[in-house]
Amino acid sequence: MRPKLNIIKIGGNIIENSVELDAFLRLFANVSGFKILVHGGGKKATEMENKLGISSEYFNGRRITNSDSLDVMIMVYAGLLNKKITAGLQAQDCNAIGLSGADGGVILAHKRPVGEIDFGLVGDINQVKSQTISDLLNSGMVPVFCALTHDGAGQLFNTNADTIASELAIGLADTYETTLYYCFEKPGVLRSIEDETSVIRHIDRKHYKRLLEEEVISDGMLPKLENCFHALESNVYQICIGNISMLKPNAELYTLITL
Amino acid sequence: MRPKLNIIKIGGNIIENSVELDAFLRLFANVSGFKILVHGGGKKATEMENKLGISSEYFNGRRITNSDSLDVMIMVYAGLLNKKITAGLQAQDCNAIGLSGADGGVILAHKRPVGEIDFGLVGDINQVKSQTISDLLNSGMVPVFCALTHDGAGQLFNTNADTIASELAIGLADTYETTLYYCFEKPGVLRSIEDETSVIRHIDRKHYKRLLEEEVISDGMLPKLENCFHALESNVYQICIGNISMLKPNAELYTLITL
Repeated sequence: MRPKLNIIKIGGNIIENSVELDAFLRLFANVSGFKILVHGGGKKATEMENKLGISSEYFNGRRITNSDSLDVMIMVYAGLLNKKITAGLQAQDCNAIGLSGADGGVILAHKRPVGEIDFGLVGDINQVKSQTISDLLNSGMVPVFCALTHDGAGQLFNTNADTIASELAIGLADTYETTLYYCFEKPGVLRSIEDETSVIRHIDRKHYKRLLEEEVISDGMLPKLENCFHALESNVYQICIGNISMLKPNAELYTLITL
Repeated sequence: MRPKLNIIKIGGNIIENSVELDAFLRLFANVSGFKILVHGGGKKATEMENKLGISSEYFNGRRITNSDSLDVMIMVYAGLLNKKITAGLQAQDCNAIGLSGADGGVILAHKRPVGEIDFGLVGDINQVKSQTISDLLNSGMVPVFCALTHDGAGQLFNTNADTIASELAIGLADTYETTLYYCFEKPGVLRSIEDETSVIRHIDRKHYKRLLEEEVISDGMLPKLENCFHALESNVYQICIGNISMLKPNAELYTLITL
């Protein structure tokens, strides 16, 4: 029987708000068993770019990561946010170890191929070094990943934190019964985007097809859910989407996604 | 018999110069056996403070670390420099893992007590968690430390990189036969500070006393050497002072310090 592993991803909104971050870190520290945290931080990086007078380039509304922007991301993601989260978890007796994908060579990526857009220094993931992550977990450590990968030839890349979470879950699914949690502001996938009480409690593939036909799924949620089913098809056990309250021991209100 | 461990400390001058850093990373990657890298980076942090319009406070010429300065250090030391060094070593097939003292809780410190000066968020080291570092070394990883520690209650601290290197050496000396290397610009401890060929090849305690009497030791070198003898008295095997060439397999020109 595979041991259980919880991979929890938090977005920028939780990190920006120190009260909410503190509440999250307490909940996370109390999650039992093997666990991994993945965090974003795009807003803070944009704020720092503005302070430094670095202007992000955009193409059709999509951000291009140039070398100056990447340096800011390395400073903010791997430095400021990752170390503050790590020190905060240590204060909760959670033996966190902050990592980028370059540390221990754990997440190998390649530059996203240039198509209609050249996204610059954005990495698509090739491989997760699951043995190294298992070694850290077995030493009693709790890996805390920021949204950076590397190519093994000295280049770091900006990689979406949701993707890092799902690729870690997939890469570790053969070794662990892996549950992936996406924490965001909403209490789950909503039937009506305006109504926070309309959380859909359970979505499986059949139900998902029906929701698609009914056009209930919002544009923002669609790629997230596609990503979830991809992970489930790759042996990830289950996925939970909701706000940080879903980490409480007897939480009921969130969306559970299974095949 | 204790296995051998090499702890190598590099200063800001090597890191700032990309050609020299590259040369260093190649030499470091080729050092055989268990090894640890410790790096500074004060110049780059000051540069970033200037860009961000943060002014460091000084008292009698000594720097005070306020909260804004610390944030910059976290970004530059644990972010930019640590991750670039880590990715650079990965490119040399050296399985580096970048760490601050908060990661895995490896270096516990307390705020330096307020005496004549309040140095602000500067940490004096209490304890090195040697078991965690051994676990990483035994997993085939090469820890790369930046100059940050934590208090276990969520506060990060600025701690001198030379001190981190010597405290790591002391903390690991019971487990490993530890050699500590201080890499700087000069080829070693010089008999005459103007003459780079005047390297003193070997200093033991008796010789050190004689050098002190002859007033040969420069003011800058004095605390470094005091620190070295403290480490040697705490079971560190030997200490080498010189430039990066001393890492070459058959290096001869450096200062060896033993009891």
